[in-house]
Amino acid sequence: MKTTAALLAGLIFLFASASALGDKPMYAIAIHGGAGTMPRNEMTAEVEARYRAGLQQALDAGYGVLEAGGSSLDAVTTAVRMLEDNPMFNAGKGAVFNREAQVELDAAVMDGATLKAGSVASIKHVRNPIDLARLVMEQSSHVMLVGAGAEEFALDRGMALVPNTYFHTERRREQLERARRGDRMAAITLNPFGPDPFGTVGAVARDGKGNIAAATSTGGMTGKRAGRVGDSPIIGAGTYANNATAAVSATGHGEFFMRWVVAHDIHSLMEYKGMSLQQAVEEVVQKKLRAAQGEGGVIAVDAKGNLVLSFNSEGMFRGARDSQGRNEVAIYPE
Amino acid sequence: MKTTAALLAGLIFLFASASALGDKPMYAIAIHGGAGTMPRNEMTAEVEARYRAGLQQALDAGYGVLEAGGSSLDAVTTAVRMLEDNPMFNAGKGAVFNREAQVELDAAVMDGATLKAGSVASIKHVRNPIDLARLVMEQSSHVMLVGAGAEEFALDRGMALVPNTYFHTERRREQLERARRGDRMAAITLNPFGPDPFGTVGAVARDGKGNIAAATSTGGMTGKRAGRVGDSPIIGAGTYANNATAAVSATGHGEFFMRWVVAHDIHSLMEYKGMSLQQAVEEVVQKKLRAAQGEGGVIAVDAKGNLVLSFNSEGMFRGARDSQGRNEVAIYPE
Repeated sequence: MKTTAALLAGLIFLFASASALGDKPMYAIAIHGGAGTMPRNEMTAEVEARYRAGLQQALDAGYGVLEAGGSSLDAVTTAVRMLEDNPMFNAGKGAVFNREAQVELDAAVMDGATLKAGSVASIKHVRNPIDLARLVMEQSSHVMLVGAGAEEFALDRGMALVPNTYFHTERRREQLERARRGDRMAAITLNPFGPDPFGTVGAVARDGKGNIAAATSTGGMTGKRAGRVGDSPIIGAGTYANNATAAVSATGHGEFFMRWVVAHDIHSLMEYKGMSLQQAVEEVVQKKLRAAQGEGGVIAVDAKGNLVLSFNSEGMFRGARDSQGRNEVAIYPE
Repeated sequence: MKTTAALLAGLIFLFASASALGDKPMYAIAIHGGAGTMPRNEMTAEVEARYRAGLQQALDAGYGVLEAGGSSLDAVTTAVRMLEDNPMFNAGKGAVFNREAQVELDAAVMDGATLKAGSVASIKHVRNPIDLARLVMEQSSHVMLVGAGAEEFALDRGMALVPNTYFHTERRREQLERARRGDRMAAITLNPFGPDPFGTVGAVARDGKGNIAAATSTGGMTGKRAGRVGDSPIIGAGTYANNATAAVSATGHGEFFMRWVVAHDIHSLMEYKGMSLQQAVEEVVQKKLRAAQGEGGVIAVDAKGNLVLSFNSEGMFRGARDSQGRNEVAIYPE
């Protein structure tokens, strides 16, 4: 009798576990490569294919970290580093020029398990800003370092610097020239130049241990003032992670995301209003930001591994993959 | 009969109005000059009197703006500018040295009526950083400018720059020397050096029209790395204002205030949990930050003009004044 009951209990337990596994992915990652793309009818199949390939590559790299039992922190850092190295996206190599024809980069990372965070802004000589943000988080007593001081810290920690020209691409130089010739405002609005995403790159992930993390990296806006810092490196605005609620990485018109403290607002709606991740993201991106004409989007993951990717712009370069078999990249609304 | 009823109604209305006036100030301002002071038993009466006089002067200047019908934005800017100019406080003239023996300043301002915000960080040659933060808010399309780019913007707008030595004081140089000789960690903890407040200055106000605003300015931490940015210029962390809830200015160990997104968390607790200003501030400063060992405090005002000043450190240089007759400055718990 006792044995049968135990066996039955065991079977029920196994079934319940399998069912829980069936409902919720064990690990999951989402990435973005910027919001605000060219109108769909102007996108060529060839350009779209290249963007999709770049997204898939970064998505798979981050997913590979999770699959191998790595942390969400390592997964988001890996995916963002790969997007920084890809000249098609506005971060690291291939980032946009500021109005002095230099590339100035911002990045941040946050660990939802500890609420530790690291951030860098207005740096010009660090190949992978996301790696420096992580160093600030793990090897300094600070959260944010900017400018030459951030680069001094990089050198102190044995990181090699690169010339600013490492980041330069002909495509971005033309973009700046067009911005200089044209309406000054065109340079600071989303999508002024066809196939160049105005944007940011980012990743959020949930690992097998249930920890979540977020990372974001950007070159900012074409023709921006030197020293302009957007939402990406601001903890609570463009980047935030808290195991209690969500990990969020944003992309879009940064000034609005800063004033609306977007990532932390999503957290707060979940924490204090009991909203689901989906509800909280929709409330902020589709209602509040839309009403304020704050164009852009976010990717987010909660502690159960639910992924939400939402934007109010024409498109958002994005990808999502989880251990339940979801694996997709997209640019326009599906 | 009708006349008597009307008279009675009129009297009741007058009484109710007077009572409402009695309950709620028409305008109010609070300021702080940093959290974490020397132990009470080491503070001399003379030093305390000088701090109190400096606080009262800034409080009265800000209050004067409100009394004359000025905006909350003008009131907080005026009070903070005066604290920046006072070498006793860690902002503007008399700010602390970083580890390269330079003064590096951060500031932010936010308008609760419009959610517009302006912020500067890591600047070295602008006499009143709060004025530049306000210029960024009002005369640029950006929210945050850092470093040399922020100073280029200042020059573009006709603001004169000052040499870094303008900010230098003998007292702060000695403080840096002591930090260099002593335990490196001593330099980054609160109150390592007796009568020097480790801190920040800030102001929040509610004007006669019911608009609220917040402003914060700081030199950061003695011996900090060049380029280190704390919570003061981060919208949502050290500075936030929203007519729907509260205007908040923080002071303390900035890294904690950034990771806990303190000012926006106070807003969220009011907005989403229906807490009063007092409840929300206590929840964040006395519970969350205390549990995290995040030392410091905040000043805050809600749209009705209620003032809350709360800290979990040994003391907080502070002042509060409103049109109901409240007028006080203090350093230690009352």
